[in-house]
Amino acid sequence: MTDHLSPVLDRIDAELPAALERLMALLRIPSISTDPAYAAECERAADLLVADLASMGVSATKRPTDGHPMVVGHLRGRGPHLLFYGHYDVQPVDPLELWHRDPFDPAIEDAPAGRVIRGRGAADDKGQLMTFVEACRAWLAVHGELPVSVTFFLEGEEESGSPSLVPFLRDNAAEVTADLALICDTGMFDPQTPAITTMLRGLLGEEVTIHGAEKDLHSGLFGGAAMNPARVLARILAELHDDQGRITVPGFYDGVPEIGDDMRAQWDGLGFDPSAFLGSVGLAKPAGEAGRSALEMLWSRPTCEINGMWSGYTGAGFKTVLPARASAKVSFRLVGDQDPLAIRESFRAFVRARLPVDCRAEFAPHGASAASVMATDHPGFEAAREALSDEWPRPAAFVGGGGSIPIAGHFKTILGMDSMLIGFGRDDDQIHSPNEKYDLESFHKGTRSWARILDAVARAAPTG
Amino acid sequence: MTDHLSPVLDRIDAELPAALERLMALLRIPSISTDPAYAAECERAADLLVADLASMGVSATKRPTDGHPMVVGHLRGRGPHLLFYGHYDVQPVDPLELWHRDPFDPAIEDAPAGRVIRGRGAADDKGQLMTFVEACRAWLAVHGELPVSVTFFLEGEEESGSPSLVPFLRDNAAEVTADLALICDTGMFDPQTPAITTMLRGLLGEEVTIHGAEKDLHSGLFGGAAMNPARVLARILAELHDDQGRITVPGFYDGVPEIGDDMRAQWDGLGFDPSAFLGSVGLAKPAGEAGRSALEMLWSRPTCEINGMWSGYTGAGFKTVLPARASAKVSFRLVGDQDPLAIRESFRAFVRARLPVDCRAEFAPHGASAASVMATDHPGFEAAREALSDEWPRPAAFVGGGGSIPIAGHFKTILGMDSMLIGFGRDDDQIHSPNEKYDLESFHKGTRSWARILDAVARAAPTG
Repeated sequence: MTDHLSPVLDRIDAELPAALERLMALLRIPSISTDPAYAAECERAADLLVADLASMGVSATKRPTDGHPMVVGHLRGRGPHLLFYGHYDVQPVDPLELWHRDPFDPAIEDAPAGRVIRGRGAADDKGQLMTFVEACRAWLAVHGELPVSVTFFLEGEEESGSPSLVPFLRDNAAEVTADLALICDTGMFDPQTPAITTMLRGLLGEEVTIHGAEKDLHSGLFGGAAMNPARVLARILAELHDDQGRITVPGFYDGVPEIGDDMRAQWDGLGFDPSAFLGSVGLAKPAGEAGRSALEMLWSRPTCEINGMWSGYTGAGFKTVLPARASAKVSFRLVGDQDPLAIRESFRAFVRARLPVDCRAEFAPHGASAASVMATDHPGFEAAREALSDEWPRPAAFVGGGGSIPIAGHFKTILGMDSMLIGFGRDDDQIHSPNEKYDLESFHKGTRSWARILDAVARAAPTG
Repeated sequence: MTDHLSPVLDRIDAELPAALERLMALLRIPSISTDPAYAAECERAADLLVADLASMGVSATKRPTDGHPMVVGHLRGRGPHLLFYGHYDVQPVDPLELWHRDPFDPAIEDAPAGRVIRGRGAADDKGQLMTFVEACRAWLAVHGELPVSVTFFLEGEEESGSPSLVPFLRDNAAEVTADLALICDTGMFDPQTPAITTMLRGLLGEEVTIHGAEKDLHSGLFGGAAMNPARVLARILAELHDDQGRITVPGFYDGVPEIGDDMRAQWDGLGFDPSAFLGSVGLAKPAGEAGRSALEMLWSRPTCEINGMWSGYTGAGFKTVLPARASAKVSFRLVGDQDPLAIRESFRAFVRARLPVDCRAEFAPHGASAASVMATDHPGFEAAREALSDEWPRPAAFVGGGGSIPIAGHFKTILGMDSMLIGFGRDDDQIHSPNEKYDLESFHKGTRSWARILDAVARAAPTG
């Protein structure tokens, strides 16, 4: 079998300085999607990507939406058809004073664990998406074609809730449906161990406000006789978990699967150290359901968390107010076949059932997405795992992801397309925070990884 | 027996317009004690009172403290020696936009239930303290002397925690100790029924913060495995009451007395309507301990209330943060011989006993005052009750007060002096709120009430 891969990897090594220059140009554009003041910058980022893809011979266009544009490009090659997804928009940079350099004046810096690319979007997601673009560029430079067909699909609203995504997928289903999607917006298991994320938790957000009296009362005048909504809310929130850490909302565990023996054995083999993971943020003991491993708590078990709560007087000093209302933001991470809308209704009934006389509850919904569980029996998964294992010190792992990436669910439900989530981020990349970085090694070996994956998927495909 | 009283009451009626003018002059001074920007205004208010007392023949002086000055004046008459306490400072006026007139441009306005004096401090406490001053002025004008000896003791820091009060009482104990203190900073039972407040609840304030991880965490990355301090706090707050509404802090009920049969019979006779009381703020059902009457809940039973709580993200929208900390302000209203410092320690132990691994609690104290229970066997109490009953449509009641007026406790513990709390405020006076008012009737009949009380106490005194 001819070795098509080695010259591509050599080309990537030789092109690294030029590839970094191209990434820096993209990082210099403050494409903050959530702030309308930066709309023109999002357009500029899309234009740059169109030009970048065109320079490789990809016919790409900027496609308008009601929000920021999509960039879509096609490159017909041989073999299976892959769709590649990344996003060119970035998070806001506040608090700016905590950055040690201008977030949009990126640079290569020396850091304790090696050289890093510092700047907003370096990891999330400009650096990641460019690993795939650069892998394709190298293949095209060496061989004049890819071993697969690729559709590039780059979004500009991922950090602001992707309002245009579902309509766009619906309107352009034929154009953007492929055999398999590649999504590059996740991380490594650890710096030595690449990962393919095969399960992503869903997310249900609810805001609940308990109302009592018409106005705040003086706790001396009314205290003891008037119902205090803060006390009612505290009790409701306290009852969401039992003393084994299980969530008590009726029907909550409907559709929660146990992970298979294969997956469990693989996770056990990862050598995950809960003490080190929790120790990094000053904690010691996994706090989830009794009898579950920390990786289960993080990847395959559903959760219920209080993300915010407030009531009464919260300033300096003391005010003997009896609050008129108390509020909480509560979110549920969902797994398997848990139905977010059914759980929303059950949660609301749970709250209402616990309201005393003189209290009423008001609810506001904040998003509801089901979990994504990838069908790892597609031959691309095993091929990609082997390709990643060839590039990195340790074998690649199939892992779960605690967070939620709704795009994989949309690809499945709207286009019927499975997704393979592969990325090279690290836990300390500070995404969404000041001083975001992407390791130079993530960028370089990430690009090499994609070159290997393109080769491996092409070989594994039944039609390849 | 010569009727000394009637000409005094006539004089008060005739002097009402002039008395109102003197009150208006005091109300025009923005003596907001908590804001250092108004320190000079507090001095001006003290100066005005010194001049006002001097105009009646009272030798009064402004006495410096580390904060705002005290005004102390003496008028030696015959009979028992009474100390009169009031305060000339006022609450801030925020939110100013909710006032329908300048809070420091007072006026007489027509209101649905009669004419009112509108302005900051009208009820709390300038209008109240002037009822006593004007009663003395009328006695002096008619008779040239009072039937009792009076020491005026007017404070300028009541609305900002009275930091100078205890040192001043200690340093000037001999000068300000009398046979009995009169405190005019409370209200009527209802507009027809005057009241002598014979029990005041104490107040213990605590702020507790539960700390978890070193920083806020992403609930996708850490949720399920990292302990959430908001959940811990909610559970602790929920456990402060049992399902009968009793407070579960160990030892909390030590020193809580049952009220006597006399008092219970009197309270039952007041015709208090809990539905109307709670209905005025949109509530229906007394929410305190099972088996207790609403008046007990308000006057003679201790409470535990959440005055504020906050954790995590509380802004618009949703942020899937796992908070690093959660805080609450909790206050306890205390009765009888409950020991605030012992309860503080027990509360803190209660919290610490409920902390899981990875959480710690931090506490900040916010005041600790014991309850005041007046010794109603002093002959002045019955004399004052009869005098009040002569002035108003319904007989005067001995009532409890849900709020806390620490001054009575300080008079007792530092000076060994009992206090009689009599005032003419109404529930709708909007003290501490926009559009504060004092009914013209409160001012006029309040002044007449004090004239009657001076006469009655003088007659009742063993030495009178």
